[in-house]
Amino acid sequence: MISVKEAKSIILNSTQNFGVEEIPFLKSVGRILKEEITADRDFPPFNRVAMDGIAIDFSSFQNGQRAFAIEGIQPAGSPQITLQNTVNCLEVMTGAVLPNNTNVVIRYEDVIIKNGEATIQIDEIKNLQNIHIKGKDRTAGDVLIYKNKIISAAEIGVFATVGKSTIKVAKQPKVMIISTGDELVGVEETPEAHQIRRSNVFTMVSLLERLNIDSETAHITDDKPLLKSKIKNYLDEYDVLLFSGAVSKGKYDFLPEVFEELGVEKLFHKVSQRPGKPFFYGKTFSCNIFGFPGNPISTFVNCLVYFYPWYYKSVGLEIKEETAILTKDVSFKPNLEYFLQVKLSDKFGHTLATPITGNGSGDLASLVHADAFIYLPSDKNEFKKGENFPIIRYR
Amino acid sequence: MISVKEAKSIILNSTQNFGVEEIPFLKSVGRILKEEITADRDFPPFNRVAMDGIAIDFSSFQNGQRAFAIEGIQPAGSPQITLQNTVNCLEVMTGAVLPNNTNVVIRYEDVIIKNGEATIQIDEIKNLQNIHIKGKDRTAGDVLIYKNKIISAAEIGVFATVGKSTIKVAKQPKVMIISTGDELVGVEETPEAHQIRRSNVFTMVSLLERLNIDSETAHITDDKPLLKSKIKNYLDEYDVLLFSGAVSKGKYDFLPEVFEELGVEKLFHKVSQRPGKPFFYGKTFSCNIFGFPGNPISTFVNCLVYFYPWYYKSVGLEIKEETAILTKDVSFKPNLEYFLQVKLSDKFGHTLATPITGNGSGDLASLVHADAFIYLPSDKNEFKKGENFPIIRYR
Repeated sequence: MISVKEAKSIILNSTQNFGVEEIPFLKSVGRILKEEITADRDFPPFNRVAMDGIAIDFSSFQNGQRAFAIEGIQPAGSPQITLQNTVNCLEVMTGAVLPNNTNVVIRYEDVIIKNGEATIQIDEIKNLQNIHIKGKDRTAGDVLIYKNKIISAAEIGVFATVGKSTIKVAKQPKVMIISTGDELVGVEETPEAHQIRRSNVFTMVSLLERLNIDSETAHITDDKPLLKSKIKNYLDEYDVLLFSGAVSKGKYDFLPEVFEELGVEKLFHKVSQRPGKPFFYGKTFSCNIFGFPGNPISTFVNCLVYFYPWYYKSVGLEIKEETAILTKDVSFKPNLEYFLQVKLSDKFGHTLATPITGNGSGDLASLVHADAFIYLPSDKNEFKKGENFPIIRYR
Repeated sequence: MISVKEAKSIILNSTQNFGVEEIPFLKSVGRILKEEITADRDFPPFNRVAMDGIAIDFSSFQNGQRAFAIEGIQPAGSPQITLQNTVNCLEVMTGAVLPNNTNVVIRYEDVIIKNGEATIQIDEIKNLQNIHIKGKDRTAGDVLIYKNKIISAAEIGVFATVGKSTIKVAKQPKVMIISTGDELVGVEETPEAHQIRRSNVFTMVSLLERLNIDSETAHITDDKPLLKSKIKNYLDEYDVLLFSGAVSKGKYDFLPEVFEELGVEKLFHKVSQRPGKPFFYGKTFSCNIFGFPGNPISTFVNCLVYFYPWYYKSVGLEIKEETAILTKDVSFKPNLEYFLQVKLSDKFGHTLATPITGNGSGDLASLVHADAFIYLPSDKNEFKKGENFPIIRYR
């Protein structure tokens, strides 16, 4: 049995590269950027009027002139015009090109306009005021966004601005999620007394949806030849197989044998953790196999603790560890690393974690009341209110 | 000009109810639950074997018996069988119904099986051990999830478990996002010297995608009759209109007049904030109108600060305020409330906010380096390292 740290290290040493694909920019939120985005021109691309008002030649103002005949208007979206006579002014709109022969903008609030003449009402004016100078924010060729960033609304705006209508992003893995167990029936079925409905595959589909990964699901009964023939095909067709169940000591827990017979290299089986101790992990040359124990919370937390970082590293994303502060003492005697569900709250910039008492790894409903798992190490048994530990959010 | 607090209060007093719709459960992640989810049966629904091993009658063990002939096997997914003779045992699998006439499970690790006989290797056994008792987690009829919760993978698992293949959720608003401004060209076009590409509508589409809202976009040139006829139709067809631009003092900032002429009730125009001071908000009997100023960061932050909470309240979601701790002193002189972009990090359970220096509200690329806005109130000008203030995350 290995530690959580060892298990994670093995998993992070067997990541895959799924390649790169180019997609419409507006479909790229949540995906991982795989190209550098550079400025196609200066930003702003011209001396840009930053206030609605009038534009003048600053030296006229410095010479004591306060009233300026309005020569014309420079709207946003029109080619640059020229102030013909520097004793005059031009009306200018936010977003317009600053007209030739002008270098100061005075906002409407600070002038009175009457009979085609604008009279300035203030005495303090600075050269270049209310002008967003060409190239002030960024210069053509500057890198605006580096590779391997997760794309949010902010990046979408930049893509649009520089004219990137398609974007190179990390391809997503092809994932099959498989449940086993003869006690399972479909969601729409009414279970017999000894049956329950399938749920783990759907929680995993949803956990993968958070990563923008589309996945497929299948159910295989506890029949070894059937398992073997189906899994043989899945190993060829998918980048990742996520299993729920059939990895423990039961008579019908055929998966470890089936994996061995199909040439899956076992990297470990069993981690000193609760929940989810019998976790199996292996690989072939083209497929990574996560065999999660079948209890609902075991599957859920293992998917977060192991599959998520494996995926992040595979697509080149660096994720910073997050921590939270316990609001109650926790005692945990077994010599195992412990993932405990917690409700998070925020107070004065502190992230607080309140343990949610469940009834063990079968009690899926307890996850409804929590937001995250807190990771309590095995080197002690008592965890005190006020101490901080790593957390993994799931909402 | 009103304060941010007044503006928010007005907005939260004019929310809408978009109604309820029923959708497939697996499509409901991120949506707001609009029905109570109850347990359709006890959980577990039967006395459930929690370990692979053997099941015996506890009294036989108490009477000193240690070796038990194996009478048969109870797999998961099979109807309950009966131990015929209490001097024998049955092999039982995790997830199986506990057989009749048994009340203790001893895991395989603690027995030796040879020639059809299991010999127990431990001396301490507790009544009912390794059995997950029927109804221990939840009783049939218990409410498992209350209304108005945002649906995550945890809730999906519960829906599946209780057989809810379709789920009632809050309907999403029908939203149109409209850009104005003659300087704007399409993302795929090459702008002339005096033009820039449209970007605000796409950042808003992406910000709404975070709320699982599909939206449509349109561009209208700075032509008052055209604006009026198009907006007239949009007011009839949509629950929400989000505008970018044309709400300030420019000669072509027609929106406030157009709104008035179309019977939009103006609830306010201008908020004492930076960025985004000229923000317009109004409504008709069926539509809410957010007129955001056109600078990229103004649009972005206003959408987060005003549209998000309006949406949350409209669908019945309670959102807790989040705060973060400044890592640097910030000085801000104007008598305005200030939304400053910050990079977030985590240390010992503290959420730290490091200000990102941009070049004002036109500098969209600066948002790439930040994660959130921190909200600094207008009642002082100096904000000290170590003080905490509310934040709004956008990634």
